[in-house]
Amino acid sequence: MNPLFQVSQFYIPPGFIDLGLGDPQLSLLPFDLLRTAAEERFKQREIEFLQYGTEQGDGTFRQSLAAFLTHAYLLPVEADSLFITNGASMGLHLICTLFTRPGDTIFVEEPTYFLALRIFTDHELQVVPIRTDENGLVIENLEEKLAEYNPKFLYFIPTFQNPTGHTLPAGRRKKLLRVSRQHDFLLVADEVYHCLSYSGEVPRPFAADAKSGNVISLGSFSKILAPGLRLGWIQTDEKIMQRLVTSGLLDSGGGMNPFTSAIVRQVLENGGLDQNIAKLKAIYSQRVSIMDDVLLQHIPQAEYSVPKGGYFFWIHLPNTINTMELRRKAEDFKIGFRPGALFSCQKGMQDYIRLSFVFYEPDQLEQGILRLKRSLENFEY
Amino acid sequence: MNPLFQVSQFYIPPGFIDLGLGDPQLSLLPFDLLRTAAEERFKQREIEFLQYGTEQGDGTFRQSLAAFLTHAYLLPVEADSLFITNGASMGLHLICTLFTRPGDTIFVEEPTYFLALRIFTDHELQVVPIRTDENGLVIENLEEKLAEYNPKFLYFIPTFQNPTGHTLPAGRRKKLLRVSRQHDFLLVADEVYHCLSYSGEVPRPFAADAKSGNVISLGSFSKILAPGLRLGWIQTDEKIMQRLVTSGLLDSGGGMNPFTSAIVRQVLENGGLDQNIAKLKAIYSQRVSIMDDVLLQHIPQAEYSVPKGGYFFWIHLPNTINTMELRRKAEDFKIGFRPGALFSCQKGMQDYIRLSFVFYEPDQLEQGILRLKRSLENFEY
Repeated sequence: MNPLFQVSQFYIPPGFIDLGLGDPQLSLLPFDLLRTAAEERFKQREIEFLQYGTEQGDGTFRQSLAAFLTHAYLLPVEADSLFITNGASMGLHLICTLFTRPGDTIFVEEPTYFLALRIFTDHELQVVPIRTDENGLVIENLEEKLAEYNPKFLYFIPTFQNPTGHTLPAGRRKKLLRVSRQHDFLLVADEVYHCLSYSGEVPRPFAADAKSGNVISLGSFSKILAPGLRLGWIQTDEKIMQRLVTSGLLDSGGGMNPFTSAIVRQVLENGGLDQNIAKLKAIYSQRVSIMDDVLLQHIPQAEYSVPKGGYFFWIHLPNTINTMELRRKAEDFKIGFRPGALFSCQKGMQDYIRLSFVFYEPDQLEQGILRLKRSLENFEY
Repeated sequence: MNPLFQVSQFYIPPGFIDLGLGDPQLSLLPFDLLRTAAEERFKQREIEFLQYGTEQGDGTFRQSLAAFLTHAYLLPVEADSLFITNGASMGLHLICTLFTRPGDTIFVEEPTYFLALRIFTDHELQVVPIRTDENGLVIENLEEKLAEYNPKFLYFIPTFQNPTGHTLPAGRRKKLLRVSRQHDFLLVADEVYHCLSYSGEVPRPFAADAKSGNVISLGSFSKILAPGLRLGWIQTDEKIMQRLVTSGLLDSGGGMNPFTSAIVRQVLENGGLDQNIAKLKAIYSQRVSIMDDVLLQHIPQAEYSVPKGGYFFWIHLPNTINTMELRRKAEDFKIGFRPGALFSCQKGMQDYIRLSFVFYEPDQLEQGILRLKRSLENFEY
């Protein structure tokens, strides 16, 4: 496609189904919610949101966001503990700038969000993987690695992990907090999927321990409202907050997104975010169950646990040695996915694939799984 | 002020006049232009701008921006050469991340934009100042410093410099381009004031040489539309562009500001930007002339050249040894300014002050200068 006319980040050729995409479906983006919010916000003639904004993010917006999070997390969140970002990626990028130097070591889960690895590469960090199981990060392996390394931070996705979908249980969270304090490293918890739970309870987010001095919780409107807004937040303690708001970037440009913050504040005041999350949960949980059914039916060798939230199925294909090669083959069948090796910082996970269920309607999900089945049948091991 | 209710970046106590502020006046922010643009954009139901955007920035927006710049710069600008940022500060921050490492040397003008210095500090860069005169950067001094240092880039503001208001003439621009190629360093030209000319012609921007391989031109909507949008652009060549769009930050979050880009695209399509710039030029040039008059009348010892564009008067107070101390004194008279030392990376410029004329109405500008006069009369040398 001519890049001059490209609007969205990913271009999908006509007829192709890319189950690798982690983007929400266009028709699920809350266009009318935002349209109404923009209209109402402009009607109030608050000119301030066109000015350089306060570094931490508009106080009134942070109050609305704190009220939403208090309700979503079922625990008190204070506006003072929130810092407005241009999304979780920008938050993570800024954390790397302010809290690391090239050559520093950081820890990640194995596997982890592959594009976070790209941000760490730009900052020339040494990335050490920590083993995970179906309950997330294996604390014993973390402790082993701590005997050898002195990490600046652990980057991890505690709830509905990307790519595995797994959630760290309360017990491991507690241990992790203790170990991180003992060894004096930061916990950078990417909690962007926390609000997208499809069945049962979710452990308290690390945001609950934001005051403990070494916790940085990353939040985002990308998964629960719209990625194009480039709006998210960091929840942390006073000392880390001070470093964020006095950074050169914030000092020069002011708060990260005053204009968009003002419109999203109106969405929050209208109760639109709760409404949107409820809608997404209903739709996504239905898709999880459909995806599970068609996988069972068409690809019985696939091994996975059904995700209880988030965006992804993480699937082990026991007889498929190299899913990177499978991806090339699959292109002939007009089906895409993310090969496991992308999510590994040591080129592991080669017999895994990540499938997302958020971009496509149920019939396309089924069509996609059928194509994947055909690719597998035609794949030489 | 309670930070919880703070919206804008700077809080001015009631009755205080802060001529140090580089923020546009609230009432000059184009509220209705943006309101109409948002309404029209939403009416067209293009849902794509709520999705992850293409890394370089929405192609259609870049085409509108290229058309505007072609007209503003009086030279052809291609959409392909433009990368959309969250403002010039974010552009500069990203350039530091991708093209420098802690300990690297960069060059700046003496004096320079003080908040850029803060960004360089966060990246632990060694900042070497280059002398300027009333025609900007002194090329001979640059060459002397090149005998001693090997900079990664020169950060400079070629037109209506912040703080001096000076403009580098065409001859020096040509020499600078030649020297930078010979010595193989990047030219990071902050051209955010280029379109705000109040009298006569402006030399071609460095953006005109964006294809030459070592030029990065920073542009912004902050000075010509509204800072709260956090929207700007970088114009550069293909190779540098490739590094920007493949950075981890962009790869993960997609283009920097798809939502706001879509609304500003509508402003551009409506011809609103040209209209707004014409309005600002008329108002600001009138304020320059008023400020000049009242300075001549009340502070005859002030030495300055009348700015031909931009935001600032850079004033030498020949008998005032330390304007940092003067600032403290001036607070008693409820008048603020930026002391010269802020703009120096070697604590020079102590007998200079920077005054801005964009935040206040003419009568307040005169009131401010009167207060400054009184502070000077009461200041012990």
